Amino acid sequence: MKKVAIFGSTGSIGTSTLNVIRQNRDIFDVDILVAGNNVERLIEQIKEFNPKHVYIKSRENADILKERFNSLDVYYADIGMEDISNLTDYDIAVSALVGVAGLKPTYNMIKNGKNVALANKEVLVTGGNIIINLAKKNNVKLLTVDSEHSAIMQCLNGEQDNKIDKILLTCSGGPFFDKEITDTITVADALNHPTWSMGSKITIDSATMMNKGFEVIEAKWLFNVTPSQVQVVVHRKSIVHSMVQFEDGTITASLAPTSMEIPIAYALNYPKRLKNNLKKLDLFEIHDLSFEKPDLNKFKCLKLAYEALDKGESYCVALNAANEVLVDKFLHEQIRFTDIPNIAQKILDKHGEIDIASVEDVLELDSEIRRKTLELI
Amino acid sequence: MKKVAIFGSTGSIGTSTLNVIRQNRDIFDVDILVAGNNVERLIEQIKEFNPKHVYIKSRENADILKERFNSLDVYYADIGMEDISNLTDYDIAVSALVGVAGLKPTYNMIKNGKNVALANKEVLVTGGNIIINLAKKNNVKLLTVDSEHSAIMQCLNGEQDNKIDKILLTCSGGPFFDKEITDTITVADALNHPTWSMGSKITIDSATMMNKGFEVIEAKWLFNVTPSQVQVVVHRKSIVHSMVQFEDGTITASLAPTSMEIPIAYALNYPKRLKNNLKKLDLFEIHDLSFEKPDLNKFKCLKLAYEALDKGESYCVALNAANEVLVDKFLHEQIRFTDIPNIAQKILDKHGEIDIASVEDVLELDSEIRRKTLELI
Repeated sequence: MKKVAIFGSTGSIGTSTLNVIRQNRDIFDVDILVAGNNVERLIEQIKEFNPKHVYIKSRENADILKERFNSLDVYYADIGMEDISNLTDYDIAVSALVGVAGLKPTYNMIKNGKNVALANKEVLVTGGNIIINLAKKNNVKLLTVDSEHSAIMQCLNGEQDNKIDKILLTCSGGPFFDKEITDTITVADALNHPTWSMGSKITIDSATMMNKGFEVIEAKWLFNVTPSQVQVVVHRKSIVHSMVQFEDGTITASLAPTSMEIPIAYALNYPKRLKNNLKKLDLFEIHDLSFEKPDLNKFKCLKLAYEALDKGESYCVALNAANEVLVDKFLHEQIRFTDIPNIAQKILDKHGEIDIASVEDVLELDSEIRRKTLELI
Repeated sequence: MKKVAIFGSTGSIGTSTLNVIRQNRDIFDVDILVAGNNVERLIEQIKEFNPKHVYIKSRENADILKERFNSLDVYYADIGMEDISNLTDYDIAVSALVGVAGLKPTYNMIKNGKNVALANKEVLVTGGNIIINLAKKNNVKLLTVDSEHSAIMQCLNGEQDNKIDKILLTCSGGPFFDKEITDTITVADALNHPTWSMGSKITIDSATMMNKGFEVIEAKWLFNVTPSQVQVVVHRKSIVHSMVQFEDGTITASLAPTSMEIPIAYALNYPKRLKNNLKKLDLFEIHDLSFEKPDLNKFKCLKLAYEALDKGESYCVALNAANEVLVDKFLHEQIRFTDIPNIAQKILDKHGEIDIASVEDVLELDSEIRRKTLELI
């Protein structure tokens, strides 16, 4: 049995992970569940999966859990997160906390030599260099759960002798690819993703294409390529999840139904695939697959990500911090959709490269940029 | 240096193989060249690549070669083919003779434990069971050079832990996919392939889709799947060269420019890819990829191949023998295009399954069916 720790168990990736585990109880056991505020859902998960250790953000909710489950090991607050992310009695952790909050816990897992299924791309956007080097040093398998990067990992399977010429990172285009981006875009408009059902933060990032920009940064770290080797390809149907072009001109593409359960299962059980109950793709039904160039002048956030990657790691940290604040403010209807790229641009323009040598450096700059971003709103 | 033996050096695959070797003289050396009647081209090849052993069909041409190249080891006639295909001072043979004539030489290579890059699909259509078992027994790498099967082999690379759900064997549709098939189709019409430039036998087989039928049989033997696991997918642009669907619903696809140099290089240097001078694919230029079902009532040869595969190995031998005769007669304008499926159907209808246990069994049945086919013309 493979013992799984799920950081972010009540979110979209966490519940999909538990769906995968539910279908494969003979292979996986749940050891750790980490949630934020959704204590009701966490209670359901505890009842069903019987973990040894759990985390919930508030002391109040932690007390509810302790009362309800006598023998359960319950953690809460910042210190609790530090402690639970340093446990080691599991085989693989799913890192699916939202935003830079996932960086330190993920760092802890890798520091302790645990394999990680990484769903939180901000970990690599902000701490890519630190995380990748630590994983290498500790011989840790860092298995991506991002659907595009999982596709790339699958295309690269068996190709260890061959050089990557180019990564073709596909992109659905989001809800505004065929529409004008105006000041009147509402939160509901932006949350209406055409092909994927995901959490709200990543759905807004998909609408701005900041998500795709972050994925370019993520690809750089995961696959050791230069930014110019990562080409974003708009593919509206989200059937092809990404492609790799090799030196001989061959392109390997990975196609799959739009369910996160496939990349999650692939990471949890790598490299052995797991059967599932998802409806199979029918190419005769799909009929055709199209590919288009993204417009970097329309989707400014994608351009900003390439710019940050080009300028250095601290620019990526800054862009991510600004974006987390801006998306949150947009979701609370305190700024307009178009303010996201515009204010993020201002933050990058004012930033000067600084050295990022540790998780603490990332988190310090992150706080500073959050403060500066709030000042600009 | 890898020593290469090329059986069929003056044909389309042979000249492409020498193009690959010309670009990689630091990796490959030519040891054996085997040609049919094209002595002029063979002389050019000998001058450029300096092989140790050569074969040419007629004694007359062999004498020309002996006179011209003093120290060259020259073979000719049937006995010469038997002898040269039993040499062993090379590392990999390219088996690219046309039709069932390639079976015995390929059998000899594998019997002698030599790795084979197999371009001649009739070897597996007629002797699949014998060849695959012998290759397994002798631990021989049988590397396909057929572009579709090379694509499948590439998709399967690294997937040894995973079961194949389905092979999606792509098919350009040939020159008549969008046209009516009538009695007035000329040789020139049928040789006008929309996407691939190949030898005349295989080009006619592409027009009738017998080629795709033979590829279904070839796939069965190479990848150990059932006929119902091989789905033919018409893809007019010949960009996707085939796909594999796995148990988890993921489809891996292999895309490449339409040049045989890529599968040849991949087989010769497996699994390390080789750089080339071919124009790279540009997905933005291609824009979209479409997939359609083939019409088995229109392309009767494809239906016949599934039927033969279903009924047994001797039916496959019979279908191939009839087809070789019929294509030859069509190329010499002695029968109509529509006679190919019709007469092949008659041959299958009259055939009764017999045991095929050896290459001799194949060749005996092959001769008998050729005679019967000629009687029907």
